[in-house]
Amino acid sequence: MSIPTTQQAIVVRKLDGPVEDLKIETDFPTPKLVSPVDILVKLHAVALNPVDYKVKKSGMFGHADVSTGRILGYDGAGTIVEVGPEVKNFKVGDEVYYSGLISRPGTFQQFHLVDYRIAALKPKSLSFEDAASLPLTTITAYEAMKEDLRVESGKTILITAGAGGVGSIAIQLAKLWGLTVIATASRPDSVAWVKDLGADHVVNHHNGIAKEFKEQNLPNVDYVFNTFGDKLINDFAPLIKPFGGVVGINGDADESCIKAITSLFPRRIAYLQEFMFGRPLFDVEPERQGALLKEVADLVDAKKIRPTSRPDQKFQWTQIHDAFKKLVDRTTIGKIVISVPQ
Amino acid sequence: MSIPTTQQAIVVRKLDGPVEDLKIETDFPTPKLVSPVDILVKLHAVALNPVDYKVKKSGMFGHADVSTGRILGYDGAGTIVEVGPEVKNFKVGDEVYYSGLISRPGTFQQFHLVDYRIAALKPKSLSFEDAASLPLTTITAYEAMKEDLRVESGKTILITAGAGGVGSIAIQLAKLWGLTVIATASRPDSVAWVKDLGADHVVNHHNGIAKEFKEQNLPNVDYVFNTFGDKLINDFAPLIKPFGGVVGINGDADESCIKAITSLFPRRIAYLQEFMFGRPLFDVEPERQGALLKEVADLVDAKKIRPTSRPDQKFQWTQIHDAFKKLVDRTTIGKIVISVPQ
Repeated sequence: MSIPTTQQAIVVRKLDGPVEDLKIETDFPTPKLVSPVDILVKLHAVALNPVDYKVKKSGMFGHADVSTGRILGYDGAGTIVEVGPEVKNFKVGDEVYYSGLISRPGTFQQFHLVDYRIAALKPKSLSFEDAASLPLTTITAYEAMKEDLRVESGKTILITAGAGGVGSIAIQLAKLWGLTVIATASRPDSVAWVKDLGADHVVNHHNGIAKEFKEQNLPNVDYVFNTFGDKLINDFAPLIKPFGGVVGINGDADESCIKAITSLFPRRIAYLQEFMFGRPLFDVEPERQGALLKEVADLVDAKKIRPTSRPDQKFQWTQIHDAFKKLVDRTTIGKIVISVPQ
Repeated sequence: MSIPTTQQAIVVRKLDGPVEDLKIETDFPTPKLVSPVDILVKLHAVALNPVDYKVKKSGMFGHADVSTGRILGYDGAGTIVEVGPEVKNFKVGDEVYYSGLISRPGTFQQFHLVDYRIAALKPKSLSFEDAASLPLTTITAYEAMKEDLRVESGKTILITAGAGGVGSIAIQLAKLWGLTVIATASRPDSVAWVKDLGADHVVNHHNGIAKEFKEQNLPNVDYVFNTFGDKLINDFAPLIKPFGGVVGINGDADESCIKAITSLFPRRIAYLQEFMFGRPLFDVEPERQGALLKEVADLVDAKKIRPTSRPDQKFQWTQIHDAFKKLVDRTTIGKIVISVPQ
């Protein structure tokens, strides 16, 4: 195909404003290959993540000045239209899914550049929309549990915000890896969702996790994957077994958490943080993320993992404001996906 | 030998008082086997550790009431005089070294009970005094670096308080495992000591570790083994490479540390705590500590590790107050050992 010089993109040129600051521009320059390991992808679908909201609010990773147009979005699924000279294993026409890098322009555009090492062929059995629901949260959950916590089969894990984007894939991976899963969820539809994904037990964090553990007579856990804010440690810290681990993804612990953090010490519990942009950002084996997505694509095609998108959370390109409002109100279950006009 | 019913012991019956509260009692009951995995050891030498001071000050692990006589001390080296019915691999007459358990009476007595799984035959080439200098700090350093940080050959580690008891053995182990070691030390004799133990670079923490790194043009490190107070993280946090790790042993982080701790997040750095009593206290593979001490005894006999005692820090039993004062004034280099009357 011939690649147009301009394209549609959802652009923000002002931080910390209303969602209406996200504007569809129809003449945004189409990106050109920058690095020899880049692939240019014609996107069919993208997905939203809480990090998009954070970046829009405050800029991050060198994007404090957005006056020239900042493009949000990390998850993407589409078709390769161009490959850099050092790209291996991919060719024009391949259908891929991936999560892009926070220091580069995002996926809310028709054409997008990404380092091939963090991409993989999309699951064959999924639509682009369903495929786009997976990459960022899957990498997060996989790295947090497998690389950071080093979870072992037969152990028990508490996954907080179980119905969230990360929680929804984390529950599935943890079950696949042979763990007993206790998930937090409160609303009836969230509880139903996490049970359907495989959670063995559900606790309502609004009642206090420790209180719920007691009432349901649940055992202490080996691991906590805290996909909620880090301050929740004040509630769950006493529930972790000696030699266990906690991994968070928000990095928002404050002074109120220090006692809970130091309370981990006599039990020799590791306090860990996952940051899914870390590998490509610091160039620490970024290819492991491509391999991880390939492994998960195979699991999806084998019906062992399912996408975390939902029919009621699929939006059209022109509905970006509605989609973003849905993200911000924090009642999302699983992922919000957006179709890209072809 | 026949085991006397009473013995000498250094007993404390009051917390948080002067060092003179430590009193040699000559008619303290000799312990009798409690558990089938206990060995009774006639001690020849013991060693002091900062934890002794902490326990004397505030009681710990169920010993707030010391009115019936609390015995401090964890490190010990001596000869087995009795074995429980389930003890394996040891017999009466074996010479052993070990670190006892914080929840049981300590080693400052002539006869002492310990779970055989956390003991090992002492290095053949060492006196009891030199052997007693090793167990607690060796287990701490080994577990912190090998089990918690999972250090890899070829990487770089910063070891704080390099001339301290834990630092002195940590430097040797890290060098043996193929790491580049940067140690902190400030006084001339401490600097000479850590260099002699193998430290590749020495920085003076009183000048600020970050400042010293800059002045000496030292690279950022993969790991920090912080044997000093946890608040030092405010100084060294920026010096750790992405995907690195920090392990502490004091559990005394406070509100002032939370920003440094959360600053580890975008670099995906693990925040870990070693607690050497953890394995036996929670019964999580305590036999790994016996195996560890055996491995180190072999390394000592092969002249690859040396004891961390010093001629100027060897005390007699009746000098316990002097020994304890030396511990408290924090100018100790390596370990303080005490001979036990036979």
